[in-house]
Amino acid sequence: MRRAVVLLSGGLDSATTLSVAIHEGFDAHALSFHYGQRHDIEVTAAKRVAASLGASEHRIAAIDLRIFGGSALTDEIAVPTNCDTKKTSGIPITYVPARNTIFLSYALAWCEVLGAADIFIGVNAIDYSGYPDCRPAFIAAFEELANVATKAGVEGTRFQIHAPLISMSKSQIIRKGTELGVDFSLTRSCYDPVGDGLACGECDSCRLRLEGFRAAGFEDPISYATK
Amino acid sequence: MRRAVVLLSGGLDSATTLSVAIHEGFDAHALSFHYGQRHDIEVTAAKRVAASLGASEHRIAAIDLRIFGGSALTDEIAVPTNCDTKKTSGIPITYVPARNTIFLSYALAWCEVLGAADIFIGVNAIDYSGYPDCRPAFIAAFEELANVATKAGVEGTRFQIHAPLISMSKSQIIRKGTELGVDFSLTRSCYDPVGDGLACGECDSCRLRLEGFRAAGFEDPISYATK
Repeated sequence: MRRAVVLLSGGLDSATTLSVAIHEGFDAHALSFHYGQRHDIEVTAAKRVAASLGASEHRIAAIDLRIFGGSALTDEIAVPTNCDTKKTSGIPITYVPARNTIFLSYALAWCEVLGAADIFIGVNAIDYSGYPDCRPAFIAAFEELANVATKAGVEGTRFQIHAPLISMSKSQIIRKGTELGVDFSLTRSCYDPVGDGLACGECDSCRLRLEGFRAAGFEDPISYATK
Repeated sequence: MRRAVVLLSGGLDSATTLSVAIHEGFDAHALSFHYGQRHDIEVTAAKRVAASLGASEHRIAAIDLRIFGGSALTDEIAVPTNCDTKKTSGIPITYVPARNTIFLSYALAWCEVLGAADIFIGVNAIDYSGYPDCRPAFIAAFEELANVATKAGVEGTRFQIHAPLISMSKSQIIRKGTELGVDFSLTRSCYDPVGDGLACGECDSCRLRLEGFRAAGFEDPISYATK
């Protein structure tokens, strides 16, 4: 069985991505990050998702992106809701500088140790088109880099960065995940959970998720503080 | 003054690189990593070097590459000396998977927060030609990636990865650093220090350093356990 490293955040996109990798026959090694999020809920959700879908291993790398600051998700800036999310360039303030570059770099390191050539990442260029590191051009550039950056690449490995959701809408992702048997009740998407982890229902991520479930014609199995 | 992020390991190459950046007129923000090295001597040396050369800021990011294993520098494999350093592919076992990719990713994140477009890295393709992530093709690929990966890139910033030592021999680097006033007594290069931090004089890195000083016609100002 070919091994693959799958980036897993605990949200519904990465859960669906992990399920795609496993259904494509990969021996999936899930990788999550504890990166100074203000809430640990994502990592807890990632653990449940990895176990539920049958990842053969799940590692959590502790990295501290707070030392640089610069984002609503790692800094002390308020998480945006509704229309105040876009800056003039169209990039949300929840953008974390170079985050997916850092995540893929770690995945690449683990690939080399595992002897794997495949990395799965649940980026999506449709609903999150504001994030530069969720676009096909980014994925292609990282693939190029991986082949010249590594011992494995020099020795002939051709790395492939799989982004199976990149052209899908949120509702298509939800339909795909449902079809593959992903238990979305285990996933968490909220940027700003309330109390002991209840999704706020108001941040960008909650709104996108709720709209996705509505458009897909399914009920979101998680609970919200407001709905 | 234009800001730059300078990767600083505490060795003589990165010290010289920091000095080059400052002499080129950059406001230098030094970045070091605590990445599960078996010795903290590198980070201590990096602090002295940053202060001595006049970096305007020095941050140390704690990252744990040991969770993946796979290298003599992060794993429990013995550090090689002399002729046993090369594997069949010509890549030393001291190669740390994707290390420079990870380091540059962090530098890129900090650049975006600082509003900087320039990163300096002390890689060298001559004496360390065994490392894939020390080659010009790697530097070029990362530059391409940086421009598509970031908000700054989307908004028009053209990132430049400066590798001023990439075509220099160790003795040329030592001459260059000496000419710029780098105090090499503050730097540390040993892979396998003895006692409270004395350079072993026998590992690959010590041998390359000592040969470099000999070829440059200077005395290495640091002490060795054997010489």
